[in-house]
Order: sequence, then structure tokens, then C-alpha cells
Amino acid sequence: MARYSPSVQNLISKLGSLPGIGGKSAQRLAFHILSMSDEDANSLAEAIKDAHKLTVRCSSCQNFTDSDPCPICSDPLRDKSTVCVVESPRDVSTFERMHEYKGLYHVLHGVYNPVSGKSMNDITLSQLFDRLSRHPEIKEVIMATNQTAEGNATALYVSRLLSPSGIKVTRLASGLPMGSDIEFTDDLTLASALKGRVNITT
Amino acid sequence: MARYSPSVQNLISKLGSLPGIGGKSAQRLAFHILSMSDEDANSLAEAIKDAHKLTVRCSSCQNFTDSDPCPICSDPLRDKSTVCVVESPRDVSTFERMHEYKGLYHVLHGVYNPVSGKSMNDITLSQLFDRLSRHPEIKEVIMATNQTAEGNATALYVSRLLSPSGIKVTRLASGLPMGSDIEFTDDLTLASALKGRVNITT
Repeated sequence: MARYSPSVQNLISKLGSLPGIGGKSAQRLAFHILSMSDEDANSLAEAIKDAHKLTVRCSSCQNFTDSDPCPICSDPLRDKSTVCVVESPRDVSTFERMHEYKGLYHVLHGVYNPVSGKSMNDITLSQLFDRLSRHPEIKEVIMATNQTAEGNATALYVSRLLSPSGIKVTRLASGLPMGSDIEFTDDLTLASALKGRVNITT
Repeated sequence: MARYSPSVQNLISKLGSLPGIGGKSAQRLAFHILSMSDEDANSLAEAIKDAHKLTVRCSSCQNFTDSDPCPICSDPLRDKSTVCVVESPRDVSTFERMHEYKGLYHVLHGVYNPVSGKSMNDITLSQLFDRLSRHPEIKEVIMATNQTAEGNATALYVSRLLSPSGIKVTRLASGLPMGSDIEFTDDLTLASALKGRVNITT
């Protein structure tokens, strides 16, 4: 005898295939959905369909948007000379939350990761190079990929390919997080903070 | 400027209202859904609608089912004289996984919890008493609510109400979990294990 009815089992397995949702969470979510009102359950299902249907990639920065070009790319107040290259749309929202960066973005939708089979063609690098050649006003590319082996490799690859072009390629500083204790800092971070030490300006 | 487009923001807030899904997880899930194929996103949305539409409560045991009575209640091989009362449909699946219990179930869909405003009328107690009066073949009610203040209160309430009826009301044993260390056992569990100590049969 099946432990759940087919439609419930199907919902559990669909939920369980989402990232970060294990078997137990999928069960809990499924039963929560079953105990929702008809209206709430339908509006959740519609939200999934709508978001998927209405959302496209911005033809310029490749971020998810419902208007192309996206609000950031079409904002006349943004600094068009700087492009910050990030791995995911979530990184754009993290940068925006900071309210310090006024340039544009480019979303790679991944990083070069030979282990997971993600090649340079699976991410939006060709769109980046195409964009740089069409927009000579771009003077600096900030590689804001994560501080991982794959993020660093992607940053290095881009900087090598762009070195003949004269476009400045920079990388976010790595070092000690604000408020951190030296005692609890891992070796790699400490080594990177030591290597990147800066003069104290008074 | 909104951080995300309205349809994405709507999806994130809908996902974030599910239990155990915080703001960050909701964002991650939403962007995962956006990067799914059209087909996969639609089948997720349909799974939610289908499960919700096809699933009803079994008129006998109140468990979620797509056929009424549910497969357990309509199984001729189950022992109809015993009803195990649980808080949630997930508890039924935990019992079934054990393959030791052959009786029927009754799902309360909650417990008496005055703090959260859940009264005796919000759970399926009246359906339980109605069922017991219609089925004199039920000789034992096993209260398998959780070992919490609310679960214990609910079990006590049911046992008091049923005491004139002559139906036997039992409670799952509480004590040390199998494989546990005395050293790391909390005081309440140890006290309960001591109080419920049994003769060693050789």
C-alpha cells in the first residue's frame, strides 16, 4: 500500500526536488499546502506560473526581469562605465541592498565548474564579451563572483581574455569580515587578508 | 526601485509564507523555479493544484486521502478494534513505516493548544467521539499525540471523556529512546523512564 495518495506523493516528490528541501521538509510543506484554503493553494500555484511566464532575461545584463531592458539597465542615473559581474540574480539584490554601487551588472547564471559539468558556454560569458564590444563606454569590469575555486577561476579567465582590450578588470577585496575575530578566522582568509594588507591612512 | 519584478516578488512572498521557509530560502527557491524549464515549472504548479483538488479528508479517520474511505480504513485486513489517535497525517506515515501496527487511525489535525488559540473544536475530537459511538467494535483508543504539554493534555482530556464508555484508552510509553546514553538524557525523560520502569522478564 502506498504511504500517500498518488497526487500527494507527486506533490511531495516535486517539492523534494527543489534545492534545500529534503524528504521531511517536502512532506511538511505538502501537508501544509493541503491544509491551506483553496484560494491560497491556487494563488501559490499561479504565482509559480506567472513568475515563470512573465520573467525573461534582460537582453543586456541577463538578470531576470519582467521588462526588457531591466529597470537597472534602463535607469539613466546609473553609471554606465562600470559593470559588476555576479554569479546569480540574488547577488544583484545583495549589492542593491547595500545602496553603495551605482554601476550596472552582468549576471553569469553560474560559474565555470568543470566538476559539475558547467562549461564556459553554460554561463553568459559570450553575452558579456558581446556587450563589452558593443558598449565602448564600459571602462571597468568588477568580477564579483564568489570567493571559491570556481569563482576565482572564472574571474581569472575573464581578466585574461579582456587584458588586450584595455578594459580594467578588478576583483572584490578578500580579507577579514567586519567585526570578525582573528582567533576564529580560517587560515585561507587570514592569508588573503595578510597578502592584501593596506597602508593605514591617517 | 523594487528589488525584484512584481511577479518574482509575489512568488518570493508566497513561498516565504510556507512553514520553515525564510526569506533567503524563498529567494533561492524562486530563482530555482525561474531557471526551471517551462514544463517543470508548470508541473510543479499543477501538482499543487491537483493535490489540493483531489485530496479530501477520510470521513472515518480524517486522514488526507483521494478516496473516501481511505485505503487504511477500507482495508479488510486491518484490526478494526483499535484506533490510534495522532496529531498529523505525517504521524500516520511514520507508524505505517514501522510495519508493526495493524489497527486503524484517527487524525486530529492538531492538538488542544490554548496558547495558539487552538480549541478542542478546531481538532477532530467530535468526529472521534461520533465514530466511537457508531462503531462499538472499537475496544481500545491509543493516544499517540506528541510527548508535549499540549499532546499530554489532549490525551488526558480524551481519556477522561471516554472513561464512562468502557473503551480502554492507552498512551504510548515514554522513556529512554533506544540506543540512548543515560548521561545525555534530560531530566524529564529520565524521570518518566524511572516512573514507568518495568519488570525484567527472562
